[in-house]
Amino acid sequence: MQKVTVKTATEYDILIGRGLLKQAGTEIKKRIAPCKAAIITDKTVFNLYAEDVRDSLQNAGFSVCIFAFPAGENNKCMHTLSDILEFFAEQEMTRQDIVVALGGGVVGDIAGFAAAVYQRGIRYVQIPTTFLAAIDSSVGGKTAVDLKAGKNLAGAFHQPQFVLCDVDTLHTLEYDIFADGTAEALKYGIIGNPALFDTVASGNFAKDLENIITQCVSMKRDIVEEDEFETGNRKLLNLGHTFGHAIEKKSHFQISHGHAVAVGLHLIAQAAEAKGIAQCGTAKRIRTALLQNCLPVKTEFSPAELAEATLHDKKRSGNTISFVFPEKIGHCRIEKISVAEVKALAEMAKKQEENRYEY
Amino acid sequence: MQKVTVKTATEYDILIGRGLLKQAGTEIKKRIAPCKAAIITDKTVFNLYAEDVRDSLQNAGFSVCIFAFPAGENNKCMHTLSDILEFFAEQEMTRQDIVVALGGGVVGDIAGFAAAVYQRGIRYVQIPTTFLAAIDSSVGGKTAVDLKAGKNLAGAFHQPQFVLCDVDTLHTLEYDIFADGTAEALKYGIIGNPALFDTVASGNFAKDLENIITQCVSMKRDIVEEDEFETGNRKLLNLGHTFGHAIEKKSHFQISHGHAVAVGLHLIAQAAEAKGIAQCGTAKRIRTALLQNCLPVKTEFSPAELAEATLHDKKRSGNTISFVFPEKIGHCRIEKISVAEVKALAEMAKKQEENRYEY
Repeated sequence: MQKVTVKTATEYDILIGRGLLKQAGTEIKKRIAPCKAAIITDKTVFNLYAEDVRDSLQNAGFSVCIFAFPAGENNKCMHTLSDILEFFAEQEMTRQDIVVALGGGVVGDIAGFAAAVYQRGIRYVQIPTTFLAAIDSSVGGKTAVDLKAGKNLAGAFHQPQFVLCDVDTLHTLEYDIFADGTAEALKYGIIGNPALFDTVASGNFAKDLENIITQCVSMKRDIVEEDEFETGNRKLLNLGHTFGHAIEKKSHFQISHGHAVAVGLHLIAQAAEAKGIAQCGTAKRIRTALLQNCLPVKTEFSPAELAEATLHDKKRSGNTISFVFPEKIGHCRIEKISVAEVKALAEMAKKQEENRYEY
Repeated sequence: MQKVTVKTATEYDILIGRGLLKQAGTEIKKRIAPCKAAIITDKTVFNLYAEDVRDSLQNAGFSVCIFAFPAGENNKCMHTLSDILEFFAEQEMTRQDIVVALGGGVVGDIAGFAAAVYQRGIRYVQIPTTFLAAIDSSVGGKTAVDLKAGKNLAGAFHQPQFVLCDVDTLHTLEYDIFADGTAEALKYGIIGNPALFDTVASGNFAKDLENIITQCVSMKRDIVEEDEFETGNRKLLNLGHTFGHAIEKKSHFQISHGHAVAVGLHLIAQAAEAKGIAQCGTAKRIRTALLQNCLPVKTEFSPAELAEATLHDKKRSGNTISFVFPEKIGHCRIEKISVAEVKALAEMAKKQEENRYEY
């Protein structure tokens, strides 16, 4: 078992290890006195793990209620948020009680947001059950729901009290869902850890999972501690995400977050090479790493479609959007791109892709 | 014109004076560089003032869009919030843009909440057009919507960038709506300003309105600066509000906030006298002041009904609720009451009311 401590407005521990789900109650009790605990989960995770977590919490003295909504990104919406908030009220939850987010990124994001706004904020605990949630969404306090116009457009910064990651839950994931996390792990490598990149790029890292999660989470911890509200370097974590979000949105969320980010990582690396920002060969290394992990590297959406979809991006500020460009594996930089230039950027990436086939 | 400056996480000015609506654009521009401004209002206020504010903002260089929803507390709900957020996205609002809340408490609360969560928080300006909003909801950064289970159960702390109160808008209010503010003004007097209480208690204070608003807002400023997130003395501002919220809820919001608070102020003063907390005669002075301003002093709901309705109150913490009791006009104290005692408290008030008639 490994522990990473995050020192933001709230200081909290992240525990990473095997068989932790059944210790959820005792580990939470070390940090929060027994109270009412509302487990928020989706119906898939409910069937797999809700009973273990409920029993563990009850044995530790918590009074437990459970709300499970249908799985899927399209349920990370205002309607589900409203249902969760009404559920809290029906259960007479007070500011002394806690929310337990049990599931992947969708569950963590919406349960965290519900905790952020119920009675103007109550405490919550994250129990991520996907690789993606373990290394990304469960840490750092970004919570949100999607609007019709785009992903994560309504939300709050609200740090959890505790994150508990049972690595065993990740070994049973379907391959595609596991691979969503792989794309984010590669992102951490590109941002600042070449050795991590190489380990994940090999496509053969199941035995190192606990260490990889710990490395990713530690990097995120360092970045979030420096810039909790994303006014500066936290933007680095958006590498691959601007085109990624556009692809997700254009596909009506049929392409998953991690798969869209995979394409986004490759596109921005290609554009960065074309602009002379990235070392020659960077895009190829990223491409190889993605393919080795059965992740996609290109999109059918046109540069014009991608550019249009980025207009609603939160990273847009007036007429510019902050883009993160790789300079090489292990180093990136943030540049403001005018809204008018975004299409040209996507075209550069496409052109690189075409050139690649000509060689 | 008078100015009060609030120093919370965000520092902001409150301007109070006559004819300020037409100066909205220039006053906002002094504080926020021209950008996109989304005016959120209700249909009643839209017809009265939206044009003035829009023109003023446009003349100052802002790009303006307007969203107006049907007036009334029952529209301060998750559904309207969702519509407002989708409107922001359709208008391609970014983190550099601003929300202008133009209207009473319902508008200010929901527009402020929408600003708090859109893209995890954008800036907003309050332009209160009711006496109640001017002295209470527009200042202090509490934003919210109601849930089915009760008032203001979902929300956020999010301070405005600026509050502009045009006293002229208050002179055209229907009497009942004006009186909602009178109840809150009396509350400020009871909490800490006997002279203010006497002025308002006279029922004849229209000529002093600018000064009264300035005094109320200054008191709220002092309290909020000391306790932005309501962990201590900010609770004093809830005087009369626990039974008040219960009455509003039991009436399905047919009884307005200020009228319900009026009854709440009288009930809690009666209970405080019965418990020996309040100086003898305090309840009578409050009763006279309320009646002088055509405000109600009693409710048809039973002690059991009031107690049941307070169970969902945000002021509840586990099995206790913080109640604010007047000791005398100008001084109050906070006491924790167990949930089981709330009914007895309401019964004490009712008993005092019955005794009053026996004399």
